[in-house]
This record gives sequence, structure tokens and C-alpha cells, in this order.
Amino acid sequence: MKIAILGGTGSIGEGFALRWAEKHEILVCSREIERAKNVASDYKNTLSNMGIHCCTITGCDNEAAIKDADVVVLSVPYQGVVALLEKLKPLFKDQIVISLVVPMKKNKMFEFVPPRQGSAALEIQEILPKTVKVVSAFHNVSARKLAKIEFILDYDVVICADDDDAKKTVMELTHDIKNLRPLDGGGLESSYMIESLTPFLINLAIRNKLSDLGIKFA
Amino acid sequence: MKIAILGGTGSIGEGFALRWAEKHEILVCSREIERAKNVASDYKNTLSNMGIHCCTITGCDNEAAIKDADVVVLSVPYQGVVALLEKLKPLFKDQIVISLVVPMKKNKMFEFVPPRQGSAALEIQEILPKTVKVVSAFHNVSARKLAKIEFILDYDVVICADDDDAKKTVMELTHDIKNLRPLDGGGLESSYMIESLTPFLINLAIRNKLSDLGIKFA
Repeated sequence: MKIAILGGTGSIGEGFALRWAEKHEILVCSREIERAKNVASDYKNTLSNMGIHCCTITGCDNEAAIKDADVVVLSVPYQGVVALLEKLKPLFKDQIVISLVVPMKKNKMFEFVPPRQGSAALEIQEILPKTVKVVSAFHNVSARKLAKIEFILDYDVVICADDDDAKKTVMELTHDIKNLRPLDGGGLESSYMIESLTPFLINLAIRNKLSDLGIKFA
Repeated sequence: MKIAILGGTGSIGEGFALRWAEKHEILVCSREIERAKNVASDYKNTLSNMGIHCCTITGCDNEAAIKDADVVVLSVPYQGVVALLEKLKPLFKDQIVISLVVPMKKNKMFEFVPPRQGSAALEIQEILPKTVKVVSAFHNVSARKLAKIEFILDYDVVICADDDDAKKTVMELTHDIKNLRPLDGGGLESSYMIESLTPFLINLAIRNKLSDLGIKFA
């Protein structure tokens, strides 16, 4: 599967690239193509140094990646995502778009600040063509832990989507990362719940002197 | 510490009574005093059969229990809690009230339906005298697992309260139940987050064929 990671040069992007590269073709995307290429090359070196030489990780610009990909991962901050997608939407056809986007702001603590649609995922679905399948997932996996490829991610990933096949694909992508357990979180209208967990987890970590919290349901 | 459990004859009440009775004095409350007395006697027998004979578990009516208690546990359904507390509020002075109350309803799935205050805990604080310290906690511990006294509850309990001493007391009560870890969830204004997790967990359990889900942050 060809996976484009928007925001691929950040640590969340790094984690997905390193952890999916053995099974999938990874497009690391950035507005600056030179930076994307350098980072993609770094990721390949990291894997090479671990004895993993099988992988296709390519740096490219957002436009080329979206046109080419089966799956587009949106690992970008909420601020700017609307403008970015308004610009890029003519390039989308029927891709699966995985939204990790969390609309939040920091006052005294972090707060979930949903758009009028109720969640970032619903807002993104409204912007993109109806043929694009938005799937909401991976908000609550620590970027730092994801990027440390030797770290065992013993967590649950709740996945919300309206399209059952797209949800199934993202469940399989979750299984491709060792120990992560995908859970069906229902339709996209439930995405506010998993998005709002992110500021809740950050606040919980701050208040209780913990860090990089993930969730496990048992 | 003298702990009154409103709704003490249900399985949540049973769990608290059995698990706190070694360290605390338990008042099992019900509108029907005979039923409360019978159930309290059953709980004592359960503990006796396990070789635990130290305990004070008394059945009594809500009114007597509230007047007498240091801590009042509200383990009652949201429907009816306002009417119940409007009736009982003259009996409250400066007790700690632990709210497990979740305002939710079932449509296709379970939905969090907060009152205008934003959460059941805030609504309850508004009804009761200002000297009463409302603490929101234990919403996401499975009643069935709590009542099975041999079951190890390896879960986290997020606690929200405006009064720091009351929060500390409830954190200690959480520690009194083996393996439960109390986490500071901030002030009562954050209670909507832990209350809304309950319908989310129930839906997750239904959709993924799991049951009695609790949460662990790591």
C-alpha cells in the first residue's frame, strides 16, 4: 500500500514511516521537497543501521504524494489544516485519509476546541470530496514513543470512520505496528470523543507528573 | 472513616462495601431500610465466609446515613438524582460527596447527555450546600468487577474536585482498593470528560465484543 504522510518530517511521521516501511511504500511529505528528501533518506539510514534494507521511503512534496497515494496520513497541527486542505483538495480522488488532527488550545491547561462540525475529522470530511474516506485514528499514541522503533506500543487505537472498508484498512495498518490493538470506535460522528482525549491525556500527564500517556482498555 | 453508600444495594455499592469494610465503617443505604439491613447482613456474611470478621457494615435509610457520614457515595442513576438530592439536601453539612453519576441515554448507542452545568458533578454541586465538597470519581470502574472482591482491579481512577483536601481523601480511598491508581483529573469543571468516558467505554465494549472495560493510562 502506498502511504503518504503529510507532516512526515515530524516525530509522528517518523514513527509511522519507520514502523510501516517494511510492509508498505512510504511517501514522506513536506512543503519543502528538499527537506522531505533529506528526512526520507535519514529514515532509510535508521532502518539500514538496524539491518532492515527492504524499504521504499521517498521524500516528495504534498501534491505529488497525494496524487500517488492510497492512504494519506494527516499528521499536521489543527491550526492550518483547513487552509492546507482547501489548497490540496483538487488532488484528492478516493484515497483513505487518516486524520490525527486534534483541535485544541492551551489556556491554563489544554482544552478541546472543536469546530462547529463537532470534530476535526468531520470538518475535514466536509472539505474533501465525498469520495474521500476520512478515518479518525492514532490521536492518542505518543509521537515520541512511536518514533522510538524499539519501544513496544502496548496501547489501544480507537478508530472512527463511516466507510467500513476504509476502517478495516486502518485496522490492518494498526495491526502492522507491533502490539497496537485497533478498536472500532463507530462512525465519524464519534471522533470528537477520541480527539478530546488528547488534551485530557496531556493534562493528566502534567498534573500527575507522567509523560507520553497512551490508553489501554481492559 | 464513616462512608454512606447511596445506592448501596446495587453491585457498585456491594463492591465498595466489601472492599472498604476492612478499613472503614460502611453504611449501606436504601429508601427501604429493611432491604438495606438485609443487604448489609449479606455483605458481612460474604466477608465472614472469606475469613474477614472485623467489619462494621450497617444497613440504614438515606436520611440517617447522610447525617452520620463523613463521605457520601452517590452510586445512583442520573435519572432521579436531582429529585433525590433536592429532598435530602437539608441533611448535608460539610460531607465529601463522591459522584459516580453519569448523565447518559441510549439511542442507537449510548450517549453522554450533560445537563446545562456541563456535567452531573457540577449539577450536584449546585444543588447541595456550598460547604459540601463534591468529588467526581469511579465512573469507569466496572460494577461487576468491583463486586467480585477477588478480582484485581488494575485500573486508573481519574478524580476531579475543587477542594484539594477532599480530592486527597478520595485518592486515599482509591488506594484502599488494591491496585486501583488514583490520578488527579483537575477541578470539577473537568468532570464532563470522565463522565463522558462511560458511554464511550460501553459503546466500545459493545462494538468490539468486549465487556466491563476499564481504563489504564501508561
